[in-house]
Amino acid sequence: MSRKYALGIDLGGTNLRVALVSEEGEIIRKIKRPSSDIMASLDTSVREMLREGVSGIGLGVAGLTDRKMRRVHASPNLPEIEGIDIVHELHRRFGLPVFIENDANAAALGEKIGGAGRSFDHFVMITLGTGIGGGIIYKGKLLEVAAEIGHMSISSEGEKCPCGNTGCLENYASARAMTAKAVAMLEKGGDSLLKDCCKGSIYKVTPEDIYNAALEGDTLSREILRDAGRYLGIGLANLINIMSPEAIILTGGLLGAWNIYVQEAIKEASRRSLRDLFSSVRIIPSSLGDNAGVVGAACLVFMSLGDIPPA
Amino acid sequence: MSRKYALGIDLGGTNLRVALVSEEGEIIRKIKRPSSDIMASLDTSVREMLREGVSGIGLGVAGLTDRKMRRVHASPNLPEIEGIDIVHELHRRFGLPVFIENDANAAALGEKIGGAGRSFDHFVMITLGTGIGGGIIYKGKLLEVAAEIGHMSISSEGEKCPCGNTGCLENYASARAMTAKAVAMLEKGGDSLLKDCCKGSIYKVTPEDIYNAALEGDTLSREILRDAGRYLGIGLANLINIMSPEAIILTGGLLGAWNIYVQEAIKEASRRSLRDLFSSVRIIPSSLGDNAGVVGAACLVFMSLGDIPPA
Repeated sequence: MSRKYALGIDLGGTNLRVALVSEEGEIIRKIKRPSSDIMASLDTSVREMLREGVSGIGLGVAGLTDRKMRRVHASPNLPEIEGIDIVHELHRRFGLPVFIENDANAAALGEKIGGAGRSFDHFVMITLGTGIGGGIIYKGKLLEVAAEIGHMSISSEGEKCPCGNTGCLENYASARAMTAKAVAMLEKGGDSLLKDCCKGSIYKVTPEDIYNAALEGDTLSREILRDAGRYLGIGLANLINIMSPEAIILTGGLLGAWNIYVQEAIKEASRRSLRDLFSSVRIIPSSLGDNAGVVGAACLVFMSLGDIPPA
Repeated sequence: MSRKYALGIDLGGTNLRVALVSEEGEIIRKIKRPSSDIMASLDTSVREMLREGVSGIGLGVAGLTDRKMRRVHASPNLPEIEGIDIVHELHRRFGLPVFIENDANAAALGEKIGGAGRSFDHFVMITLGTGIGGGIIYKGKLLEVAAEIGHMSISSEGEKCPCGNTGCLENYASARAMTAKAVAMLEKGGDSLLKDCCKGSIYKVTPEDIYNAALEGDTLSREILRDAGRYLGIGLANLINIMSPEAIILTGGLLGAWNIYVQEAIKEASRRSLRDLFSSVRIIPSSLGDNAGVVGAACLVFMSLGDIPPA
C-alpha cells in the first residue's frame, strides 16, 4: 500500500512554514518563507510540495479559528488574513480537503503526536514568540477551546492590548514586549551593552541581542528577561490553578533564553500556584520546536480521515 | 423496582448541606447546618438522612480534592478539614461508597444534570460567595481539572492571598472582599448608610447590607459593588478567552446583587474578551442555586454506579 501524506502549514507569525508530512508524523520536506503576501506565498509553497498521496492540507493559523465553519475569526498578529476565506481558497485551487486550527492548538497536537507531549495525557502547550499562544491537550486529545492564553489579563490596570483587553500576558512576557521594553529603557538613556549592538540603532534590538547581552552580564538585559519571566510565571500559575495539567510544554523563539527567562518564570509559578498542583506539574521544553505546528496541522488531515486513531 | 437514592453533601463554606437525592436528581429532603465541628455535624446529618435505597455518599468540598486518592489536598477556606481523611471516615462509619469532588465542580455537575446547564455542552460555572470557585463542563461532562478560578491572579502586583498567590480574583470580587473593603472605607470615615446598619458595628457589615444600601442610592456601597463587578469581569474575560464556553453560569450568595455587581461584570467582560468569543457566550444565573452542590455531589454516586449515563 502506498504511503499517505498531508501538507501541514503553520501560519504562525512572521514566517510561513509548509511541510510534507507522512502519516507517521515524519517531516519529508519543509519550506519556510516570509508571511508577507500570504496567498501568493501559500500558492507557490503548496505547488512545490504537492505530490502523489497527499490527502489534504492542514492549516495552523495565529488567531481565532472557527473549526466548524473553517474560517479565521480574528488574527490580531496577522491581520492581513482576516479578510481571506483561506480554507475555501486553498480548496478551490488544489481540490484537496482543507482543515484549520489555531496555530498553538496545532502545535499542541503535534507535540502530543510526535514530541515532548507523547507521555502526557493532559498538558498545556505555550508558544513563546512575537505573541504568546496556547493549546491544551486533555485526556490525550486537543481540547477544543480558544486557549488564547496570551490574552489572559494578569494586570487589571495594565497596558492596553491591541485585542481590546488591558494587561494581557502577551504585553509583558512576549518577544515583542521584551524588545519594546529594551527600546524604551534605552531611549531613556539606560546604560547597556545593547547600545552597541544592532548597528547602532536601538530600534533594531532583538530578543537574541537581549539574551546575549544578558549572558555577558548586562544588567538592563538581565532585568528585562527576568521581568518578562516573572510575568510569564503569573500566567503559568494561573494555568496550573485552573487546568491542573501534568505538564506545561514551552516552545517558540524565546526558549533560547531558558536559563534566565524560563527559570524565572518557573520560580514565580512555584511561588504563586497552589502547592499541591505545582508539585505535580512538569515544565519542560518542546521537543519538536518549530516543527510542532506543521506536524500538528498535518495531523488534522490524518485525524479527519481516521488514519490516526485519536490518542 | 425500588428507587435509588444518594446522599449529596456540600461542604462549601460556612454551612454544611446534606440532601437525600433521587436518581432523577430530585431533592427529597435537605438539612443545612453550620460547618463548625464538621465530623460531628456530618455524622448527625447523615444518620438523620439514611434510609433504604441509599447507595452512596457524594461529597463536594471547598478545596483541592484528589479524585483518585479520594482525599482533600488543601482547603484554604475550610482549613479544619485538611487533616481529616473524610472519605475514609464516612465510609468507616456508614459502610457506603463515598466519592469526593471540589464543591464548585460538583455544583457544575448538578447544574448540568438538572439546572441551567442542561442545554449547554460546554460551560463554566462560577460560585460567588465567601470565596470564588469554579467548575467546567466540556462536551457534556465534568472537566477533571482543578478549576480554581478564584485563585487566578488578575493583578500582578496585587494583594497577598492566603493561598500564597498575589492578586487573586477572590480577593477583589468575593463577598469577603466586598465586606473587607466596606469596613476599610468606613474605618477611614467614608460617608455611607452602612454606618447605621449592623447595630452600629461596622465590622458586622454583610454583602446584603451593602446591596441594600446600594439600592437606596448609597454611593460608597454602589462603588464597592461596581468595583467587585469590574474585577469579576476581568476573571470572566480571561475564562472566555481561554475556555471559549457557550455559557458562564453564576451561582452563590452574591447573585442577589445581580443588577449592580453582575451587570458591571458582564460589561467589563464585554470590553475585555475577544469580540467573537464574547458574542457567543451567554452569562446567566444558576437555576438550582444553593442546591446545585448537593445534587452534583449525589450525581457522583449515581455516575460511579453507572445509573446516570455520562451526559
